[in-house]
Amino acid sequence: MDKQKLENARGWIQSELKDCIDFWLKNGMDLVNGGVYTCLDRKGEIYSTDKSVWMQGRCGWIFAYLCHVYGTREEWLRASKSCLDFMEAHCINRAAGNRMYFTVTAEGAPLRQRRYCFSEAFYAMANAEYYGVTGEREHLERARRAYDLYWDLNHGMPDPTGLGPKTEPATRTGRAFGIPMIYLNVTAVMQRVDPENAALYAERAAACVDEIFRYHVHPELKCVLENVAVDGTARLYYTEGRTVNPGHDIEGVWFLLEYARRTGNAELVARAEEIFRWAITAGWDKEYGGLLYFVDALGKPPEAYEHDMKLWWPHDEILISSLMLYRDTGKEEYLDWFYTTLDYCKAHFADREYGEWYGYLRRDGLPTEPSTKGSTFKGPFHLPRMLIMTDVMAGELLSK
Amino acid sequence: MDKQKLENARGWIQSELKDCIDFWLKNGMDLVNGGVYTCLDRKGEIYSTDKSVWMQGRCGWIFAYLCHVYGTREEWLRASKSCLDFMEAHCINRAAGNRMYFTVTAEGAPLRQRRYCFSEAFYAMANAEYYGVTGEREHLERARRAYDLYWDLNHGMPDPTGLGPKTEPATRTGRAFGIPMIYLNVTAVMQRVDPENAALYAERAAACVDEIFRYHVHPELKCVLENVAVDGTARLYYTEGRTVNPGHDIEGVWFLLEYARRTGNAELVARAEEIFRWAITAGWDKEYGGLLYFVDALGKPPEAYEHDMKLWWPHDEILISSLMLYRDTGKEEYLDWFYTTLDYCKAHFADREYGEWYGYLRRDGLPTEPSTKGSTFKGPFHLPRMLIMTDVMAGELLSK
Repeated sequence: MDKQKLENARGWIQSELKDCIDFWLKNGMDLVNGGVYTCLDRKGEIYSTDKSVWMQGRCGWIFAYLCHVYGTREEWLRASKSCLDFMEAHCINRAAGNRMYFTVTAEGAPLRQRRYCFSEAFYAMANAEYYGVTGEREHLERARRAYDLYWDLNHGMPDPTGLGPKTEPATRTGRAFGIPMIYLNVTAVMQRVDPENAALYAERAAACVDEIFRYHVHPELKCVLENVAVDGTARLYYTEGRTVNPGHDIEGVWFLLEYARRTGNAELVARAEEIFRWAITAGWDKEYGGLLYFVDALGKPPEAYEHDMKLWWPHDEILISSLMLYRDTGKEEYLDWFYTTLDYCKAHFADREYGEWYGYLRRDGLPTEPSTKGSTFKGPFHLPRMLIMTDVMAGELLSK
Repeated sequence: MDKQKLENARGWIQSELKDCIDFWLKNGMDLVNGGVYTCLDRKGEIYSTDKSVWMQGRCGWIFAYLCHVYGTREEWLRASKSCLDFMEAHCINRAAGNRMYFTVTAEGAPLRQRRYCFSEAFYAMANAEYYGVTGEREHLERARRAYDLYWDLNHGMPDPTGLGPKTEPATRTGRAFGIPMIYLNVTAVMQRVDPENAALYAERAAACVDEIFRYHVHPELKCVLENVAVDGTARLYYTEGRTVNPGHDIEGVWFLLEYARRTGNAELVARAEEIFRWAITAGWDKEYGGLLYFVDALGKPPEAYEHDMKLWWPHDEILISSLMLYRDTGKEEYLDWFYTTLDYCKAHFADREYGEWYGYLRRDGLPTEPSTKGSTFKGPFHLPRMLIMTDVMAGELLSK
């Protein structure tokens, strides 16, 4: 390992982290209504005042996580609390069993309720992390309730919103990879801050890992399928059944590696390596560089016509997973992927002039115009999480 | 007008039409279950067997329309009838007031019911056109019923599916441009084949034109807004409220021109010209050519991150509207737009090797890879409609 090279990379990462955090604190926080605006353009100007509930939770989490990793700072804790309070006041559909909305207005009036319960997942993560930093018990209770609600909704509980499944269940049912995969990540936070419930979290995490491998990992196709039959059968006759999201798979890799480390499961590391290799082989664009957003398990046209665009977050996930794989296996190929991806991100995603990263690049690596730094789906989450985690891991590797 | 140039263009158009029709008859028609598959790759291979209900209606319409324009051919009539029969047998949600599904399986089992009622619009068009060609009265009755259902659903009738609005109505309601605009087009077909109900169609068409100008056309912003408040107020603080879809506007232009011609309303031609100019000015890509998919009324980042891609159908709509504007006003600028767009389409969308047009290009004009000739949203509709209509209009202009 070239220590100087890693030190240089770490220096760049630390400087990007500072810019990123400054960008959101300065431009995103809503000092009037609380919470965060995430639809920010290249310069940080708000281009939509509608608020994403996912992003309230993710932003609430990231600022508490910064405190967890680097020590509490008042402005971070205040930003986190602002998102938590905004969610508590405005983002919970109290008439529908505390299901959470998907979007609300600037002031918090409900705009959209979706059937999926990822808002609840990020709310749980945020409250748990905030409890971990402050010890304020009410936040742990909130996290536990939402954590259970997510589990129950995905294990047979009737949805109190009454929205029903998107696809007619008499014709087609199935499983989505995102459900156990995101829950595994939320569980990791719960485990860290709530040792009282260690047994429950261990059981749920094991169930998630089991679901991922039992149903979604398909070695015969060398991929992870986003959507499968309830029994895990691949359904290759329609596009959704062949959808591969390489960035999603690579994100899952480090969730699995963390689980393997916690449980001392060395065999699982090898299985995570395999997922990484499949995804990076299928998804890395040999012509232009960068990771394709979607690929098809059989090489046919993916459903989403923007499938060959380059989104920021899959690249953040490559950086985390490749460095963690290097840390945990010592294999140079992963360090190579880390640097290759870092170079791509420096050249294409980073914006030296205004800070933060472009969210959306065309296949050729140029940003869509007018470009964006945030959206309903992009806020202070994947990028700062990657910068924090790779800073910490680089530190571990350098101090060896 | 350079007659030779237009004759050459017409020759190319006629040859593309033949290739396009052959492509769908050969690759799309489902001889086992009836109806049409539209998820076809570059070579015409089916990559998903799920069937789009929009496409059953649109395909049923186009093959009847071919008979209307060029005289009945058995294989066209059979293709149209196959889609009509498939819809009748499988695509109507009888338990929900004859609302129609959005997608069904190859065999016709229901997959997805959406709140929007465009399936019903295309079903009405298809049945009406088929009645116009065959005189089979049952098809007229079906068309009339669906035509009324669409109107009622958009004018206060409770939706029998119970799906409810996507956005919480206590917070935000509104109007979508597509609703009067598509209905104006369906009405034009009904008027042509069903003179018994002429008064009703005249009244409904007038109401659509009124809604379009009263609510969606915003001269102060030099654009047509896709989404406005119920009273037409522009809402510029969130992205959806600023969405401009230049291809949609340009499609609307020729619906308005047809209406102006039917009603002898010369003043309306000038207003349609204005819409065309706004849309082509805002949407034509000065750097790479082609029409951008979405633009923002204030030049901010559009909601859909694929906004700068080039889709086939807006280009078809430019070709129809520009040639119709030239025919109806004699202004050379429209003929210039016709040729400029035709050149772009020849260079980027057309596929000399396998026929039909690529559906989706990156901003730089190269097809997404693997490329597609069809999808849930692309079938035998916009392209053959354009080829038929420009063939006919070029014929009119050449015979002057």
